Amino acid sequence: MKARSTSDRPRPADNTTNGLYGQHILSVRQFTPEVLEYIFGVADEMRTLVERFGSADLLQGQIMANLFYEPSTRTSSSFMAAMQRLGGQVIPINSVKFSSVSKGESLADTVRTLECYADVIVLRHYEVGAAAEAARWAHKPIINAGDGVGEHPTQALLDAYTIRRELGRLDNLTVAMLGDLRFGRTVHSLTRLLLRRGITFRFVSPRLLRMPDEIRQEVTGAGDTFTEHEDVHEIIGEVDVLYVTRVQKERFTDLAEYERVKDSYIITPELLREAKEQMIVMHPLPRVGEITYEVDEDPRAAYFRQMQNGLYIRMALLAAVLGRA
Amino acid sequence: MKARSTSDRPRPADNTTNGLYGQHILSVRQFTPEVLEYIFGVADEMRTLVERFGSADLLQGQIMANLFYEPSTRTSSSFMAAMQRLGGQVIPINSVKFSSVSKGESLADTVRTLECYADVIVLRHYEVGAAAEAARWAHKPIINAGDGVGEHPTQALLDAYTIRRELGRLDNLTVAMLGDLRFGRTVHSLTRLLLRRGITFRFVSPRLLRMPDEIRQEVTGAGDTFTEHEDVHEIIGEVDVLYVTRVQKERFTDLAEYERVKDSYIITPELLREAKEQMIVMHPLPRVGEITYEVDEDPRAAYFRQMQNGLYIRMALLAAVLGRA
Amino acid sequence: MKARSTSDRPRPADNTTNGLYGQHILSVRQFTPEVLEYIFGVADEMRTLVERFGSADLLQGQIMANLFYEPSTRTSSSFMAAMQRLGGQVIPINSVKFSSVSKGESLADTVRTLECYADVIVLRHYEVGAAAEAARWAHKPIINAGDGVGEHPTQALLDAYTIRRELGRLDNLTVAMLGDLRFGRTVHSLTRLLLRRGITFRFVSPRLLRMPDEIRQEVTGAGDTFTEHEDVHEIIGEVDVLYVTRVQKERFTDLAEYERVKDSYIITPELLREAKEQMIVMHPLPRVGEITYEVDEDPRAAYFRQMQNGLYIRMALLAAVLGRA
Repeated sequence: MKARSTSDRPRPADNTTNGLYGQHILSVRQFTPEVLEYIFGVADEMRTLVERFGSADLLQGQIMANLFYEPSTRTSSSFMAAMQRLGGQVIPINSVKFSSVSKGESLADTVRTLECYADVIVLRHYEVGAAAEAARWAHKPIINAGDGVGEHPTQALLDAYTIRRELGRLDNLTVAMLGDLRFGRTVHSLTRLLLRRGITFRFVSPRLLRMPDEIRQEVTGAGDTFTEHEDVHEIIGEVDVLYVTRVQKERFTDLAEYERVKDSYIITPELLREAKEQMIVMHPLPRVGEITYEVDEDPRAAYFRQMQNGLYIRMALLAAVLGRA
Repeated sequence: MKARSTSDRPRPADNTTNGLYGQHILSVRQFTPEVLEYIFGVADEMRTLVERFGSADLLQGQIMANLFYEPSTRTSSSFMAAMQRLGGQVIPINSVKFSSVSKGESLADTVRTLECYADVIVLRHYEVGAAAEAARWAHKPIINAGDGVGEHPTQALLDAYTIRRELGRLDNLTVAMLGDLRFGRTVHSLTRLLLRRGITFRFVSPRLLRMPDEIRQEVTGAGDTFTEHEDVHEIIGEVDVLYVTRVQKERFTDLAEYERVKDSYIITPELLREAKEQMIVMHPLPRVGEITYEVDEDPRAAYFRQMQNGLYIRMALLAAVLGRA
Repeated sequence: MKARSTSDRPRPADNTTNGLYGQHILSVRQFTPEVLEYIFGVADEMRTLVERFGSADLLQGQIMANLFYEPSTRTSSSFMAAMQRLGGQVIPINSVKFSSVSKGESLADTVRTLECYADVIVLRHYEVGAAAEAARWAHKPIINAGDGVGEHPTQALLDAYTIRRELGRLDNLTVAMLGDLRFGRTVHSLTRLLLRRGITFRFVSPRLLRMPDEIRQEVTGAGDTFTEHEDVHEIIGEVDVLYVTRVQKERFTDLAEYERVKDSYIITPELLREAKEQMIVMHPLPRVGEITYEVDEDPRAAYFRQMQNGLYIRMALLAAVLGRA
């Protein structure tokens, strides 16, 4: 996953960015525990930097192309802010369907064109494997900002960073994932990132939206344990992390089934009364009713802090792949 | 209207921004004459700065989210340029209907997400009260860039600033507002901002598009005077300010009525021959025929200077709410 | 083509930018050989600057409005990157149809509005002559980024710059243009720019898509020579430059005709075996099949280097018209 060439600009010693300099960020599978700790450490530094000074000039004069084939305001805004707070500039390409990109040009050519102008390319695409395909051609680092139902590695990183920061550790926790576990890219990536850490997984979903076989086998294969549930009450009392995702009506062919289950997947203050005092509720946002507004006041509601952490994680990744971390 | 929290960054002494630091800008009603004078003074400084140096680094490292739920090229461009000329960066969110913002997320959540990335949020929305609703949730300053037929305070400020700058004062003037006074957000806000200054208002419009009762009562309640007219010739000779807005065909159910009146609401060199030598013609732009191009050559045509003043006023507001004015 | 006014900012001595300071860039016709050499020299400096340092602060505090009435991701991205690598800022206006610009406002008013905020306006428009019309009203420099089937002067400049850089000279070459020569704006502009240099032109196209009379007469009138062909094999062995453009199916009323010719206009490694060792293949991109991917590995494939050169040429033009070259 190393970008195939580098510029002539002054670069850091090879070991200062823990091997991330010039690399693509494509999948959670590429992060060893050491690299993860390194990224979290840089993210902590970014937090300090933003809170004290607002920004820095680490990436001054560098350009990030924000290439979004499908819209995602919060992800694109988060990357944009991350680059800007490091002193860099952004070329936003959000409306791909109105652009020459859609005139039948291949992703390979689009990426090779943009790297003539930019130093790093953030790519959001609707097809699984798009980021890897882009990386095959690119001479500059590609950061995968979500490719279809495939990976969304920066989301998984910010999720893991949030757990570590909120609970002090990533190991030996009980982590419940709730909602649409079948199509939820974020819960797939996060599960993979949390393997081999002694985590007990609780997968809570309607039968129709169970965690895919592939992921369940990866959990078992890693020597970790999981149980599956339809009722959140079965596990709410023991979890350290409740990771909520949306159950979309459109996923159900049988609307009676949807009506039967939907209320079990709405998080309320009443439900949280059954939860531990030291636990957190997470959500990748946007939410549309699956966590009520009253929950926001609960100190265990971590989702806006999670959102904020996305900024620091993305700053850390940009600085690292551009050799300035 | 104070944003509910502040960052840890160094901040100015409390009194240097006349109380605007950390505040939301929601309505013209929040500007006392003192605050108005303060903003105009800062705007004058911004003019000098731009004319001499092009830009400054007052807001370097700060980020403005430009959140536009309905398109408005000139307002969004004006805010963007204002932020950039102060050394800041912008996250533009113009195509809300293509973004996750439109996936049913509440304005409250969108604002709380964006403030994780940005230091100030400029909001344009199609619903009255949207800016106040956003401000209820935001911890960073919200600047209302127009909410439906509600308020457009920065437009009113730049209008008042233009009058003061062009005519040397804001008091004891005769101000005519012409065109669509019923739906025209800008004339409503400007009227409110000019109350209690000894202004004589002349409201010139088709009967169908008269100034709403509510505004007329506010004028009377403030002890100011107004008269209403259908024919601009009745008042053109005496006005210090002729504020023109567009009469849209679509507002008329009776097209014969439209045909009868439309020509009375087109400003021409002939009409201006009846006007005083010391007066100004204003327009919020864009115009579509209601002021002929020949008028542009007239030194009394102030609308492009008015447009330019928008830059200085928005620079002043951004600097003030971010504590750098 | 001189912009009608200038700002009060410090400016360079009149002769340092070879007369380009404050000028509009509207047509290839305005470039004398001397000015061309000057621009190429500045572009060379920009290349060094980008390769060594990534960026400069020559245009710090200056703002470019990127006004695109029709979408063109690569042109707008290229201009954006050019401005950013010079330290400047950009106001992107890409979705004109969703903006107030489309509310019936004239181009003249739009330009006069944007120049209230920006220091230079890059304009892409679907109508021939739009850039000249904009320049008629503007007080700040207009750069034509393509107006309908009219001109695209910065594309022609980067094409000529690529030839000079790749082959060491612009004179006494054999230049083939291939594909859709009838509607291809880029080949029209490039042909004009290469006149009076002893170039032998080879125009290769389906009969339906021949180079227009007007251009052929300009070539002859300049004392240069051209021949026309339908079969690229007739000339591939002798050309120094093979400039490829796309043959679009939609141009043909007789699809049998299209089927008959289309394969003659696809560049493959087999075809290039007939070409000289010292020659280059160019393409304005995007391509959709008219050059196969295998060709990319050939060192004579210059189209991505050509793309990169676009950045340097646009940096040079921006620096020149803003008086900082």
